[in-house]
This record gives sequence, C-alpha cells and structure tokens, in this order.
Amino acid sequence: MSENTTTNKSARLRELLAGPRPVAAVGAHDGLSAKLVEQAGFDAVWCSSFEVSASYGLPDASLVTMTQFLAAAEAMDAIIDIPVIADCDTGFGGPLNVAFAVERYERAGIAAMCIEDKLFPKINSFADAGQDLLPTKEFALKIEAGKQTQKDERFLLIARTEALISGQGVPEALERAHAYADAGADAVLIHSKSRRPDDILELGDAWDRDVPLVAVPTTYASVEEKALFDAGYRLVIYANQGMRAAVKNVREVLGKLRAEGRAESVDADIATMPEIFALQGMTAAFRTAP
Amino acid sequence: MSENTTTNKSARLRELLAGPRPVAAVGAHDGLSAKLVEQAGFDAVWCSSFEVSASYGLPDASLVTMTQFLAAAEAMDAIIDIPVIADCDTGFGGPLNVAFAVERYERAGIAAMCIEDKLFPKINSFADAGQDLLPTKEFALKIEAGKQTQKDERFLLIARTEALISGQGVPEALERAHAYADAGADAVLIHSKSRRPDDILELGDAWDRDVPLVAVPTTYASVEEKALFDAGYRLVIYANQGMRAAVKNVREVLGKLRAEGRAESVDADIATMPEIFALQGMTAAFRTAP
Amino acid sequence: MSENTTTNKSARLRELLAGPRPVAAVGAHDGLSAKLVEQAGFDAVWCSSFEVSASYGLPDASLVTMTQFLAAAEAMDAIIDIPVIADCDTGFGGPLNVAFAVERYERAGIAAMCIEDKLFPKINSFADAGQDLLPTKEFALKIEAGKQTQKDERFLLIARTEALISGQGVPEALERAHAYADAGADAVLIHSKSRRPDDILELGDAWDRDVPLVAVPTTYASVEEKALFDAGYRLVIYANQGMRAAVKNVREVLGKLRAEGRAESVDADIATMPEIFALQGMTAAFRTAP
Amino acid sequence: MSENTTTNKSARLRELLAGPRPVAAVGAHDGLSAKLVEQAGFDAVWCSSFEVSASYGLPDASLVTMTQFLAAAEAMDAIIDIPVIADCDTGFGGPLNVAFAVERYERAGIAAMCIEDKLFPKINSFADAGQDLLPTKEFALKIEAGKQTQKDERFLLIARTEALISGQGVPEALERAHAYADAGADAVLIHSKSRRPDDILELGDAWDRDVPLVAVPTTYASVEEKALFDAGYRLVIYANQGMRAAVKNVREVLGKLRAEGRAESVDADIATMPEIFALQGMTAAFRTAP
Repeated sequence: MSENTTTNKSARLRELLAGPRPVAAVGAHDGLSAKLVEQAGFDAVWCSSFEVSASYGLPDASLVTMTQFLAAAEAMDAIIDIPVIADCDTGFGGPLNVAFAVERYERAGIAAMCIEDKLFPKINSFADAGQDLLPTKEFALKIEAGKQTQKDERFLLIARTEALISGQGVPEALERAHAYADAGADAVLIHSKSRRPDDILELGDAWDRDVPLVAVPTTYASVEEKALFDAGYRLVIYANQGMRAAVKNVREVLGKLRAEGRAESVDADIATMPEIFALQGMTAAFRTAP
Repeated sequence: MSENTTTNKSARLRELLAGPRPVAAVGAHDGLSAKLVEQAGFDAVWCSSFEVSASYGLPDASLVTMTQFLAAAEAMDAIIDIPVIADCDTGFGGPLNVAFAVERYERAGIAAMCIEDKLFPKINSFADAGQDLLPTKEFALKIEAGKQTQKDERFLLIARTEALISGQGVPEALERAHAYADAGADAVLIHSKSRRPDDILELGDAWDRDVPLVAVPTTYASVEEKALFDAGYRLVIYANQGMRAAVKNVREVLGKLRAEGRAESVDADIATMPEIFALQGMTAAFRTAP
Repeated sequence: MSENTTTNKSARLRELLAGPRPVAAVGAHDGLSAKLVEQAGFDAVWCSSFEVSASYGLPDASLVTMTQFLAAAEAMDAIIDIPVIADCDTGFGGPLNVAFAVERYERAGIAAMCIEDKLFPKINSFADAGQDLLPTKEFALKIEAGKQTQKDERFLLIARTEALISGQGVPEALERAHAYADAGADAVLIHSKSRRPDDILELGDAWDRDVPLVAVPTTYASVEEKALFDAGYRLVIYANQGMRAAVKNVREVLGKLRAEGRAESVDADIATMPEIFALQGMTAAFRTAP
Repeated sequence: MSENTTTNKSARLRELLAGPRPVAAVGAHDGLSAKLVEQAGFDAVWCSSFEVSASYGLPDASLVTMTQFLAAAEAMDAIIDIPVIADCDTGFGGPLNVAFAVERYERAGIAAMCIEDKLFPKINSFADAGQDLLPTKEFALKIEAGKQTQKDERFLLIARTEALISGQGVPEALERAHAYADAGADAVLIHSKSRRPDDILELGDAWDRDVPLVAVPTTYASVEEKALFDAGYRLVIYANQGMRAAVKNVREVLGKLRAEGRAESVDADIATMPEIFALQGMTAAFRTAP
C-alpha cells in the first residue's frame, strides 16, 4: 500500500533542503500556475498570498481568508507531485489561529506553511505602508503553538522575519531568526526589499544553525541562486514572476485582439488549445482516473 | 440612492446588444484575468468554464462545481464594472438545476448566464470525444425553467447550441436556435469547431429573429468581428485567448528562470510589481474603501 | 420590474425598527435553522458567529472565516423572506477589513451587519477569558470605514459595545455608544453577561439618540421584550436559543436510539420526514422554481 | 510518528464491519451534529446528503454540490475521532465524476463514500417522484472507476441500490447487489421505503458474499439492529433522526419564545451555554491546540 502523500511531500522537501544544491520554488496562485511551475522543473510551489490576493483582484492585505488560501493550496497539491509551501501571512491571527491553520493545512496534505512576524492585518511587504512587527516573543509563541499542533513531525513550519523590510538592521533580523529557530521553526525566511543582496548575504554568513535559511530575491534580483546557497540559503523562492509573466503577455495579446478584432491576429502569441488540454489533463481524463 | 448593480449590468449588456457595433467579450477565470479584460477595453467578460476548469488544473468535464463557477463569477463581478456572462455548461443538470442556477447567479449580480444543449456530464467542445445532444424539447424545458425563475426581467439567459459541434448541419442548428428563442432565450450562441466560418455565416444569414446571435471564433479565427456582425452576430466571444496568452509567457519565463537561476534574467519579460499592485487595487486600498 | 431584494430587506428592517413594538430576532447558523426562525414568526434572523462556529464544531474565537460566515448568511437569505442580520465579530480585522466586509455583505443582499469593539482575534463574550476592547476612536474608524463603503444608504451597520462584558460600567458603555452613533452606526448593541438586566435598563433610560438600541438577553433571561422596549431597546436578539434547543433534543434522542437499537423508539420525539421535506421545499421543488 | 488519519479511519471502519456486532451510524450535516453522534457512542457518522441539503434549506435533488458536500464531510472529520461515511448521491455524474470524487474524498481523509444507482440529477428516495435507475452495467462502471482511483486500499466505496425504492423486487435488488460486489464495492447498501423490513430481511438471508450489507431503517423503523445483523447486515444507518430531533425541539422552543417574549421561558427546554462551549471545544481552545 502506498504511503501517505502528505508525509511524502514534507519528507521530500526536507530531503531537498538537506541536499547539495539550492532548492528553488516559484510562486503560484491556482492549479494551472502550479502545474506550470512543476513542468518547468522547479522543486516546489510557493502558494503566494500576494498572487492569490491578486488573482481575486484584491490587495494583499489580509482580506482573502484562510478558507480561500487553503483552497488554493489544495487545488495545487491535488494535481502536482512536487511539494506546496503555503504562504500564510501572519498565520491569520494569534497563536490559536496558527495552531488551527497548522491542523488544517497538515490535514490537507500541504508540505509546509510559512508565517511572518508582521501585525495582523498585514500589508504586502513591498507596499509603501507601515510594516510594524510583532514583538519577538509573541511571534515565537505562534511558532510554538504551530509546532505543538502538528501530528506528523515531518510537516514544516517556516518562520519569516520582516525585520529588514521594516527598516531594522541585520542584527535585529539575526536575533529574530535565532529566536524563531529556538521556538522550533523548521526554516527561517529572511525577507528584504533592498535592491542589493548585501544584508541577505551578510546575515547568511553570520548564521550558524542547522535550521535552513530561505531567500526571496524579488528586489535584489541580480543575485544568483548559487551565491545565495553559498551564503547559507537552502531555499530560494521566486515569489511572483509567474503571475507577472502572465500579466505582461495577457495585456499585450488583449490589446492586439481589441485593436484587430480578429482572433487569428494573436495566434502566434498564445499557447494552443491542445497545450491547455494537456495541462488540465483532458487527454488523460484526469490525473488519477483509470 | 444608487441603483442595483445587478440590474445595471444586465441592462447595460442589453443596451450593448441592441447597439450599432459588435459587442466583444473575452474569457477569464478569476478576478485578475477579468480585470485585464476590462482594462483592454472589451465590453464584457466571459466567465469561461474551460478556463475555470483549467485554472484548477482539471479537465473541462463537469468536475468543477456550480459552487466554484459561481465563486469565480462573483470574484470577477465584484471588482470590475463591465458585465460578466457566466458560462454554465449544461446548467448543472436538469430544469430544476437550471432554475436554481438562475436564482443564485441573479442573486449574485451576474448579468447573464449561458447554458448549452449537451448531455450532463459534458466534455469540452473541442475535445476529441462524443458530443451527444439533449433532445431539443428537453433543452427548451431548461430554458423555460430558467426564464420563469428570474426575478428581474433584464437578467439574460443565453442558449448555446452544440449542433454544429456534434456534427449536425446548419439546418439542425437553425432549428434548435429557433426552438430556444421560442422558449425564451435572450440570445442564442451557435458554437462551431470548423476551421472556417462558413456555417456560422450561413446560419447568421438565415436568422430572422430579434433574438441576438452569439459567435465564438476559436477555430475559425480568421473571421473578423465586423464580418460576424454583418452576418447577424451581436456578440463575439474570444473565449480563451487570455489564458492561452498567460500560459505561453509563463512557460517561457519559468524556463528561462530555471536555466539562469537568477530573477533578473526575466525582468524584461514580466510585468512590474507596481503594475500588479495597481491591478489589485493596492494603492487605492481597494475599490470601494474610503 | 421587481425591486432589489437587498434594498427591500434593509428597508424592511428599518421600518420595523421605527415601529411601535419590539423587533425580535433569533440566532441561526444555516438555512434550515433560519427557516425555522422565520416560520416561528420572528422578524429577523441573527446569523450568529457563535452558532456558526459551533456548527463547525469550532470555538467562537475568530477561527471561522469571513468566507464561511458570509456563506452561512447567504444560504439563509436565499431561502427566507425576513432580513438577515450578520454577526461579524470584530469586522475581521481593521477598518479595511470592515469596509471590505460591508462591500461583500451588501453585494450578497444581507440586510445588516454587526461589528463589535473587541480586539481581533476575539473570544466569545461569555467565555472565561480576557475581553480587551479596542480604543473607542479606533472602533469609530471602523464604523466610518464601513459606512463610507456601503452603496445603498438603507444597508445597516450595527455597532456592538462589549464595555459591560469587559467589566467596565454603564458610563463607559454609554460613552462608547454615543461615539459609535456619532461615527454613523445605524444601531448600537449593548452586550452584557450580567444575570440581571439592571445595567441594560439603566443605559437604555440614559439614551437620548434616535439611533436604535439592541439587546441580547442571554444571561439576563428573565427580562421581557416589553420591558426592554420600554427602556428604549428597539431590537431584541435571542442569540442562541435555537441551537441550544437542537442540542438538547438531539442528545436525548440519540441517547435513546443508542440504548434501544431501534429507530421506532424515537419516532415520537422527532419531526416527521414530510416536515423536513416541507422545510427544504421538496414539494414545491424549490422556492423560485416554476 | 503517528499514522495517517485517513488510513486509520478506513481501517477502523473495516475492523468494525468484520466484528461481532452491528455497526451503527447516524446521519449528520455539520461538525456539531457529527460531534453529537460521536458523543452518543455511535460507531460512525453518515454525512447525509438529505441532511446537508436540508441544512441549506434546499431540496435533496442534486442542487447542493460536491464542493459543499465534501466541505461538510471535512468539517465533521476534522473534529471527531470516529469514521465519516460520505453519502455521495449518484457520484455527481458519470464514472469520471465518481473517480474524481474518490480522489478528493480520500485526500480529505474521509473513511468511506457511498454512491447510489439512480439517475443524475437525483431526487430523495422518500419523495413522491420518479426513481429511475441506471442500468446495472453502467453503475458497475462507476464503481470500477472509483475503485481504480483510490490510492489506499483500505478506503471504502459503498454501492447503494435503489431497486426496492424504484418498485422492483428483491430478485432485481439482489442481482444488482451481486453485480456491484463483483465490480468491487466494499459494501452494498440495500435501500427500502417499505413500512416493513420483510424485503430487507429476505434479501439479507439470500446474500452469500463476504461483502457486508448495509441497511437504513427509516420507514421500517420497528426492526431491531440485532435482527438486521442476524439477517446479514453489518452496518445500520439511522440516516436522519438527529436532524429530525433538532427540528422538533427548535420548533417548540421558538414557538414558546415567540409567545412569551422572554428568554427565561425556554431555559428548561434547551442546552446550557457551557454545554455548547464544551461541544465546540471552547475550553480546550480546540482539539489539537497546545
């Protein structure tokens, strides 16, 4: 009899994180975008709260609910074989909410969850708005609540610090990273909106724990995965490039279509119907069907 | 006091259909893709069951439920000002299901619903599979059930015949179109998977009712909106070009990103973060907030 | 053409509140329980967050999401003719969340929303736990955000103060009630967990605004609707008696059934199948069908 | 490390079915009603499509979707320790829909699914309406599709025949039961709306397979679990007595409350607040929290 899928995907992610090369994940917001990440050869999918919010046409500001985020993660996980890492913002409230989220995400077979140390309701890290942090100890309590709740020890809870985002320096980020690792976090994501990777690399060099570090090179885009890995980052998340790729071409194609008034005018700029059929499993009926 | 939004959008769609130029709609599957359709200047959004199914990574085969289709349509309608036309496949079952769907879609403020005369569970019209039709009278009963249920007379129920798709000729398609108009359909969509628009144009020329015709030039892509309009089609739906545009560029960008291992390598190929922020109303907080 | 349902139900609730007798609402958590409230002759349904949480088997502590609360309110509103007043806890976060909730609840045709001045995440008012309040001005900002968002001026936003619950006296409750009315609240709910109605009646006597007061006599159960009305309360909510009635008899019936091992043993203690059929519209097919 | 919950619950149900006494399940429609079934000492919960439909105030006629039925089953399973058997009507369509349902229900940790051999869309078996059956071979294909899809061999797919309901006799019911067992069904439910258990008992006596039989004594309520067990039925489902118990007392209590206008008047007829708190895990915070 086959093993539990949840178990496998968390275990696979742990193996990857312990491996000899950087683990690369890409942001997605629904089944299709996750499938494209898998097909491109990446190791994992980042179920991005920014992308999921944007897919609803809503700001990334704690308006979309756990019900909706979890549904997005489940839709992905059901149709791909690589692990899903669920971006869970602040954990949807206090320690009780985090514990509840861990229970439900683990139940659903999601490999890993990530929570961040901002105040609820949050606002996107790259938005021009206040980015106040929860006191370190309070966030550590959230991590502890989550870790005590999980049933399978292989499920991963990733702690994300926004210390650099909120304008505090590397020492504060490092102190928080230590505290979160002490609280049981399975990995620590150091977020930054700097145009340069210096802080990220400096923090990586100062890191001396076994707990893997995670980087999201959205603004410091010039850095190479390899450089991050050498600085101690085991997981690199390209958090939103997929959706941004989609928007760019959809805009261009719809603009041309509107101007031309003829479907054929965009045929060279779009995927074929059979390509979509293949992506949605139309030929194979669907993934697990006979 | 402002008028009811539902009412307005159905009314607007009716006005457009009675106007002097072709009405153009584009398929979408979530809030963001619908917003892009609106921003490109189109008249309406087609909440495509093909696209919504594909967004879940699932075949277009009656697996996605009315709950999920309606949620997609509502997510769109809440953040755009143009009307949403909901592709409701076979109406989710028999006449009772159609009546129920009309009640719920109208409640939700969706401007129009479209149902087709295939058997439930359906399979996508372009798939290489049986496309059996419901007897004309049985489908007419569905239309009647729907029309008797709606509360606001401006809500539109569009009947779609798959007669050409199922290999029957123009006379059968025309007979069904007549029957559906007689049953109260507010518009009739003639679907075709021919590479050429000949059947579509022929049927249009033979049409002598006030009820508007609708065309979906997916395969006969060379035809111009203008030509369809001149042949009697009031509404032209580009049913899936948006999603196909997305898939093409996401694939290319992710492929390059995987090969390069550096975010910057795709910067020129993707929309900027501020573009996404604007699309999701991050600056304005959100659409209706103070 | 018939008028908008939303409009009607908000308008009807306003008329009732301006009428010569107490308006009585009862708590419910799904369509069926709401239908029973309507059939018993009450004026409105209170979509209770306590009941909805309990229906999920979850504590009343901000774990159930707006998605789920709104779905419960919509399920009710779709099948009853009396107004639904949605208990929205703290408004799901800050002012932006309240504005968003108002937009979505109004869209869905819900007559009224109620938000309370506790901190998010909240814990049930009768639970033995801290009941810290948001500063008055911050809660007033939430009310303002909500009132500025609504499109139809007849939609009602009810402000609920937990000042008495949190152990503060009548003067603080009164001051908050004034501030909330000033901020635009359409009614003010004064919550209390006292065994006696003295504070509630005292506050009512001191109230000199046109804004209606609302009472929830859960603990001070001996008070009569008439007495509350005479003290200035226009709306009396029996917030959870329906669910509590259900639990009592389900327990007794299942206990007997388990002991006896024979369905007939409980026949006299349960409703008949035709009664349930009638409640769910099985005979009439469903409410709006032909 | 603890074992997979899904596995455990399916395994437990199989053990119970192989045990020395009748297994008893009771119908429920949400977390709370399922919790009450568990607390009353029953072996399993029947996530009844009749009850779930009624909870929405909707007829039991394939209007409620798989999304909603699955959500109900998940809400139950997350908060109880006994297995959930999901009533899945006709399997939501054809063989592909059944396979899809099996994939999703198994993923969600539901112990067992039950599908019936009526046509889609179905109407409740006790309703005064046509109860046409799918040809035996076609229904067998559904069972095969489902069985080939499941990943864990312990998951159970129960086949339900409505042969007696549709007015056909014991021989037809028996023939169908044989065919469904041959197709791989893990148990066969023989449904009947007779006032007497004669047909059910006769069929049980004629049954010579290892596949367990299931009975639902709604109309033939006088029969004892023991008698059914002796006739070969391993599982007895009290499909709707919980909801019917709820409706009876809610009606009486709300009637009295409306007449008296005083909450205290029903205090003796309802559960206390602490009872509800305990049911929803308010004291223990929630089931799996630290």
